[in-house]
Amino acid sequence: MSGESAFIDSIRALAHHRAARNLFDDAAVLEIGAETLVLTHDMMVEGVHFLPSQPREDVAWKLVASNLSDLAAKGAQPLGVLLGYMLGDDDEDFSAGLFDVLEHYSVPLLGGDTVSGGPPQAFGLTAIGLATHSPVPSRGGARPGDALWVTGELGAAMLGFEALRDGTGGDTSSYSRPMARLPEGLALAPLVTAMMDISDGLLLDAWRLAEASHASLAIDSAAVPIAAPEARRIDALRWGDDYELLFTWPAGTEPPVPATRIGTVEPRGFAPLFLDGEPIANRDGLGYEH
Amino acid sequence: MSGESAFIDSIRALAHHRAARNLFDDAAVLEIGAETLVLTHDMMVEGVHFLPSQPREDVAWKLVASNLSDLAAKGAQPLGVLLGYMLGDDDEDFSAGLFDVLEHYSVPLLGGDTVSGGPPQAFGLTAIGLATHSPVPSRGGARPGDALWVTGELGAAMLGFEALRDGTGGDTSSYSRPMARLPEGLALAPLVTAMMDISDGLLLDAWRLAEASHASLAIDSAAVPIAAPEARRIDALRWGDDYELLFTWPAGTEPPVPATRIGTVEPRGFAPLFLDGEPIANRDGLGYEH
Repeated sequence: MSGESAFIDSIRALAHHRAARNLFDDAAVLEIGAETLVLTHDMMVEGVHFLPSQPREDVAWKLVASNLSDLAAKGAQPLGVLLGYMLGDDDEDFSAGLFDVLEHYSVPLLGGDTVSGGPPQAFGLTAIGLATHSPVPSRGGARPGDALWVTGELGAAMLGFEALRDGTGGDTSSYSRPMARLPEGLALAPLVTAMMDISDGLLLDAWRLAEASHASLAIDSAAVPIAAPEARRIDALRWGDDYELLFTWPAGTEPPVPATRIGTVEPRGFAPLFLDGEPIANRDGLGYEH
Repeated sequence: MSGESAFIDSIRALAHHRAARNLFDDAAVLEIGAETLVLTHDMMVEGVHFLPSQPREDVAWKLVASNLSDLAAKGAQPLGVLLGYMLGDDDEDFSAGLFDVLEHYSVPLLGGDTVSGGPPQAFGLTAIGLATHSPVPSRGGARPGDALWVTGELGAAMLGFEALRDGTGGDTSSYSRPMARLPEGLALAPLVTAMMDISDGLLLDAWRLAEASHASLAIDSAAVPIAAPEARRIDALRWGDDYELLFTWPAGTEPPVPATRIGTVEPRGFAPLFLDGEPIANRDGLGYEH
């Protein structure tokens, strides 16, 4: 969204004395003595990132899982989270969901802040992880000749969202309670050349990986495993919230976790992304930007 | 506020498997290898923590300074911050103030998230610091016989707020651009028995320190240095946002930074706080809770 770009640009302009590239796109990496920390912060706003009617248990789950997914993409082991919580009508529901997800991932709540305000309710979560491999995987390491892989299936969150929105009674869990691919991220970190999670849709996030790597990605859309009907294939490639891992991997070898090869890394052409051979030169409408 | 208490209580009830005391009151302490980190997260909401008309440069400054003040109270050296930023009409102003304060304290912006949403605008900031002394100063270490000290003068932020609210043209800087007592915190950390910053007013924060230390604090109100007219003395003791350090110190010795002795630590009596000999048995109305 253009407002975000302008803000980031003004930060970049002011931050000439330090590297501001990818400042808000990617997790932060911080050396502490002999250890390397990975830090990530996401905000979620009522009416933007979740439906006002959505159970707050699920909002809490997603807030934590989306941040843990950022740690997964860095091969980091979660050490804890800090919560920024805006009080509302369903605080006990939020609290219950928060402890469900923290319990599930065995991650402690280290602290945070509670405030009044809203509507809309807004929440923030900071996750702190310990890197398990150095260098920490980034989006910028894809090399021509590498293969492009993805874990899981895409589009499940889209179907879950639609079931929730339309009250069809269908399974909403992939949208409401996404899973962070932490074990997969840990297993992949030592050998990936680039890695990120797909929070904003495969095509948009692949675009970002290509840009960060100064390479082009050629994706075979038919190869992408989808959880949706075939007629929704392109929608599934554009829809976010699946929290699968997208990674590049040396050609000719197989990754150590279940994953599907969906394309290749090529030298940078005139577009960052090629879908079934067609160049995509404009990122508008590729995915979900909020 | 009762909503906050209920939320914290429900978190405590669910968090029976871990120590949840002071979870949201106090900074988090995390051991990383041989190092100790201090982590703090504060949210600020338009209409609650700042006036809608307040320049966003100053809101950015205060968001950072209030978190750095929490690090100061732990004797921690700031390593960086993560920002949760809700886009609005004055993004460039916010960005300018953000870089003013980060430049002033030589603290890098490590990352964060930008979102749309609001009004009201809501911002979150996580600050990460490196502890310089072990054990890290807490609120819970005051011992009977220690003296109670405070840095600086109280009430300046109150006068600044009133000048801003009433448009008197008076000096608003103490309210708009508070200073975190980082050098003082570093110098005090090795010898204080307890320490915290006064963000919610001297009396309320002294109450919290007394409760955490299972002691009583006897404060001599006339000894408290105030920046306000004498007629406003009690207001100055209740008003927050001064970000001075309140600490307990072994009797008979002087702290290494400018500070004023304002009372003594006593064995726990029937109230946590005694003001000029009068017990204060109820924390309602003591200070600023939001």
